[in-house]
Parts: sequence; C-alpha cells; structure tokens
Amino acid sequence: MSAIYSVAVDLGERSYPIQIGAQFFADPQLLRAQLLPWLAGEQVAVITNATIAAHYLPALRVALDGLRVEVIEIGDGEQHKSLTSYTEVMDTLIARRLNRSATIIALGGGVVGDLAGFVAATYQRGVGFVQVPTTLLSQVDSSVGGKTAVNHEGGKNLIGAFYQPAGVLIDTTVLSTLPAREFAAGLAEVVKYGVIYDADFFTWLEANVDALNGQEPQALAYGIRRSCEIKAEVVAEDERESGLRAILNFGHTFGHAIENLSGYGAYLHGEAVAIGMVMALRFSERLHRLDQGHTPRLAQLLGALGLPAKLQGALDREAFKASMGMDKKVVDGRIRFVLADAIGKVSITDHYDDQILNEILDEFNEHLAA
Amino acid sequence: MSAIYSVAVDLGERSYPIQIGAQFFADPQLLRAQLLPWLAGEQVAVITNATIAAHYLPALRVALDGLRVEVIEIGDGEQHKSLTSYTEVMDTLIARRLNRSATIIALGGGVVGDLAGFVAATYQRGVGFVQVPTTLLSQVDSSVGGKTAVNHEGGKNLIGAFYQPAGVLIDTTVLSTLPAREFAAGLAEVVKYGVIYDADFFTWLEANVDALNGQEPQALAYGIRRSCEIKAEVVAEDERESGLRAILNFGHTFGHAIENLSGYGAYLHGEAVAIGMVMALRFSERLHRLDQGHTPRLAQLLGALGLPAKLQGALDREAFKASMGMDKKVVDGRIRFVLADAIGKVSITDHYDDQILNEILDEFNEHLAA
Repeated sequence: MSAIYSVAVDLGERSYPIQIGAQFFADPQLLRAQLLPWLAGEQVAVITNATIAAHYLPALRVALDGLRVEVIEIGDGEQHKSLTSYTEVMDTLIARRLNRSATIIALGGGVVGDLAGFVAATYQRGVGFVQVPTTLLSQVDSSVGGKTAVNHEGGKNLIGAFYQPAGVLIDTTVLSTLPAREFAAGLAEVVKYGVIYDADFFTWLEANVDALNGQEPQALAYGIRRSCEIKAEVVAEDERESGLRAILNFGHTFGHAIENLSGYGAYLHGEAVAIGMVMALRFSERLHRLDQGHTPRLAQLLGALGLPAKLQGALDREAFKASMGMDKKVVDGRIRFVLADAIGKVSITDHYDDQILNEILDEFNEHLAA
Repeated sequence: MSAIYSVAVDLGERSYPIQIGAQFFADPQLLRAQLLPWLAGEQVAVITNATIAAHYLPALRVALDGLRVEVIEIGDGEQHKSLTSYTEVMDTLIARRLNRSATIIALGGGVVGDLAGFVAATYQRGVGFVQVPTTLLSQVDSSVGGKTAVNHEGGKNLIGAFYQPAGVLIDTTVLSTLPAREFAAGLAEVVKYGVIYDADFFTWLEANVDALNGQEPQALAYGIRRSCEIKAEVVAEDERESGLRAILNFGHTFGHAIENLSGYGAYLHGEAVAIGMVMALRFSERLHRLDQGHTPRLAQLLGALGLPAKLQGALDREAFKASMGMDKKVVDGRIRFVLADAIGKVSITDHYDDQILNEILDEFNEHLAA
C-alpha cells in the first residue's frame, strides 16, 4: 500500500486539504473514510459525465453507501461548460429538491469541476463542495484554488465565482485510463509551475521526461504533489487574484486567444497553454527581460512531453489581439502580461512595446507546426 | 442640511458602511463624494429599471462625471428577477467589454439589487458592487447583508450567492415617489425587526404609526436606521446563515409559500410577510411558546400601517406545505420555523406538531380578508 500525501491549502476559515494517493478507487472503504468528513449533510449530488461515470461511479456509490446520492451527468467537452448546462443542472437539483445541506461532488475533469463548482457556489447561495479530479490537468490546476466558472461565447470563464471546496481527492491511478493526448496536455501546467516558481522543479522535469511519459507512480506522485504545493502557496497569498495569483496565468493570455480563435476543441487547453508559454517566453526575450536561449529549452521540454510549441495554423493578428483584449487580465484597456525574468521567476506587467507584440504574433504565424 | 447617519456592517475584511441621509440625490457633489471611495475602477455599470432611471439617473450621471458609465435597464417586477434577465445582463456586460475592475451599481428596489448583486458576484468571478436602494423594503432589508439571488420556477431565491457590497447609500427622500402600497410593504420588515429583536422598537413603532405613515423625516430616518442596525448586528454574527441569521426569516417561511401559491405579484413581498408573521405568531401561541394576545397586537399594528393580517383568498393546505418544503429553511426533510417566545425574542426550531400546523393553515383559510 502506497502512501497518501496531503497538501494543505491555507486560506484561513476556508482552508482545506488535497489528498493524493494511488489506491482510493480500488478501496471503497478508504474512499469513504476520506470523503465523509467533507460532506455537509446526508444529501450528495455527483456531477460527472458518462465516460467517467462508467469507470469510477460504482466505487463512489459503494463509498457513499447509506447517503442519498443523486447523479447528474453532463456532456463531455468544453462546449458543455456553459450557462445552458448550468441552468439544466440547477433545474435538476431543484426538481429533485436537494436542500441547503447538500454536497456537490465533482467527479471528472476541468469541465465537470468548473461547472460543478459554480453550481455549488450558487445553488441556494452555496452548498457543500468536494472535488475528485480525474484528469491530470484538473488534478494539478483547476481543482486547486477555488476558481469556478462557465464559458460565454464572448470568452472563457467570464461567468463564475471563487468558491473553495471542503477537500480535493486525487487518485493518480485514474490517469492510466486518460487518453495520451489529454495526459500530455496536463503536463503543460506542470511545466508551467517550474517556469513561474521553481527552477529546480523545471530541471527535475527535464530529467524525468521518460518517467513522466511512462506514468511511473513515484514520478507522477511527485510531479502532482509539487504542482499542487506551488499552486496552493500562490493561492494562499492571493485567493481572489488581486496580485500574485495572476502569475498562474503565465502562457494563458496567449493560450486563451489561441483557443478562442481556433474554436473550442481544436487545441486542448494544455496544448494552447504550451504554445502560449513559448510565445510568452519569446516575448520576454524580445523585450530584453530574459536572456536568449530559454525559448528553445522550453520548446524542447514540451516537445519531449508530447506537447506543441508552434501553432498548427495561422491566426489573424488583429483578431488575436482583440481576443486578448477581452481577456480578464485587462485593467482599464491595457493588457497585463505575465512575462519571465528567468526560469523560475515571472513578473506581471503592462509595460510592453506593441510593435514587438505584433512581431511575435507574426513570427508564430510564419513558423507553423509541420 | 440634515445629518448623515452611518451604520457599520462588521464583517472583517468584507465590512462596509450604510450611509443614510435625506439629501444625496438633491446634491450630486455630495452623492459623488459618497460613491467614489466605493468604486473599484473607472468603469461603472448601473443596473436599474426605466421608472427609477427617470427619477434618479440624471443626478447619478452628474455624480459619476468623468467615469465610463454604462446603464442596463431591466424590466420592473419580480418576474424579471430570473436566470433569463441574469443571462441578458451578462451578455450586455460582455458585449460592452466591461473588465474586472468594473463596479456594478444597483439603483432600484429589491429586484434590481438582488439581480445586480448576483451579477456582481459572478461577472468575471466577482467585480465591485454598490447598493443604492430606492424602496423602503430594499433599504431596510435586501440591500443589507449580502444576499443576492434570482428566482426559479421551483421557488424564490434558489440561485444566488453571498456577496457584500462596498457600501450602501440610502436617500430617504426617494420614498416620496414610492407608491403607498409599496411603502407600507416595506414597513412590514421594519415591524419584523421589532418582533424578532427589540421589544422597545416594536413599542416605538406602535407609538409612531402616524408619523411613519406620513413619512415624517425624523421618524423615517430612525425607523430605517434602527432596522439597518438590527440587521447588521444579526448578519455580523452569522454572515452565511448557518444559525442566528435565520431569525431574519421570521414570517418568511409562511410568506414565501403565500407568494408562491398566489403567483408572484398577487401580494407584494412585504404583504405576504405581514400575513406570514401573523401566522408564525399564531403558530407560536398554539404551540404554547408564547402567551395569548400577541397576535391581535401585531395584527393591529400591521393594519394601522396599511398592511394585511389575513389571506385574501384560500390556498390549498397541502400545496402550502409542499411549497414550504422546498423552502431553503429545510434541513433533511424537516421544516425549520422561526417562532416567537415574546415580542422581541424568537427561536429557530423544527419541533412542532404537524396537526397544529394543519389547523393554523385551515384557520387562515377560513378567516379570509373581507
């Protein structure tokens, strides 16, 4: 039996633990022991999708034996992270008369977690919430820190709330059923933590490419744990993103624009972020914030992990900039970028030369993926 | 020039003032001086309705001179406190590209305030929020305490959030343009504060019926101020309604059922609450929690203030109970009532005899308003 790692997210009265282990779904009694202290009452609504439910709902039902368990399935894919799905879930909760002491359990990836979290934040002005993320991306990013949201046709995550769960349960073995492309996309956020916060972790990732690609349990557990620790530290400093927390958006200002303009689904979120990180690093170099040579190093690590570093097809430059302008990182008209000063250190700034931004966008449009 | 009273709502880092005065809209520079410290940035979206806008928007525009001010009008009436209106407002904010440092100003009554507050709580995961309530009901109740919500066909306020404003600005002179029936409905909540918390205030209300009905400035200012003080004290004890705050629902469990079954609009909220308070007091007497004789005293005060104490038409008993069952005050199947132990003191309990509840409902169905 392998160890359970606990990462504390320190947010005063909203503090909660992230429990990381490899045996929760194989051992329903252990799963029950982890989950029960996090439930607000006797009623549970599990929000999930059909694919995930087929794998993990039976064990979860056993673990929750004796409680009233309602299951609400939403469609699979980013297009279901919408006000329409939100309204349907609310209709269901109300029709089934779940009360204020209910707990919403998000069983799935980022779409399920973000939507379920926004539901939990706003059903009857807030009910219990537990995250059981089943993708690498949601384990190291979206399940930690309390950001919940749905998308709008005007942009991603424009409607949502900050709402912290009572706990996050991460079973690393679920990643073996994840498609390889989605697993790689999750590694993009793991790499991000190295770039923004921890040069040693970046070096460790470079040295452990094969172990990570092979999902070796020890490497996987360390990568997830260190990612959660870094995110938890940043979120504890700045829960509502008034300052430091914005560093977590490294690569995302570019990445969100790539996603918006390509139509949701053309790139996985992590793939768009991977390219966005390379763009942000290149932008940092061109602005002389960062020595030359880091962009190829990042591109090489991403490539080794099965991630893109170049756009697949050209994107209109002005549309790209307009898309970044609707991004939430804008304060009174000026885009705020997260730029790198070194591997392991980034800054938030709205000081940039617009002409160089144009050149960066042109450069990536000229050098497309083969 | 009359005084400005300030009531502090003490919620730690979410604390904010309620400013009460009689001259804000007559003096745009004073209005500006009050509002500016509460704004998060240079962008303001005023959510209001056409009736209110005609009266007060010009002064507000003068007060906000130099800022970008967008105005979003919603329909007048409880039916517009809906997910549909919410979605339309979100569409507009996104189309007009308001950013994360925007401030939502709610200029209107409870429908505007509750909807605008839920918008502020969830637009880009939360933006600035200021309440300028223009009805007596919203001045003494819905603008204070951070409850925001929209209705659902399954019940009132089922979708929402707790979200505190940066400040609340109350101009008592706006009540002169309020229809008499709406003014009276607001007094129902004022009476409630006496019943649940302050027997002396209840006695003061009995002694000042004529002054209140005549909107004498001193009486009005004291009634509003004392109401806000009591609500602020209760909310400071229990921001998220895990205990004490539920006493503010006195009369509301019955009142919401009256509203639901009669169709929104048949009774004003305050009218339904007035009848609901009489039902709750009568229920308290029948359960021997309270001495006989208080129900007529309450009914007399309500009547003197132009409020009903009896149902206008019969309501099906079982439908009534089912409607209360969907109410948010239910914990795991049992209805929690706020019942009176004396004028000025109430308790929250789920100990009651279902047969006596039936008799209370039958009694009110037999003794309808003439």
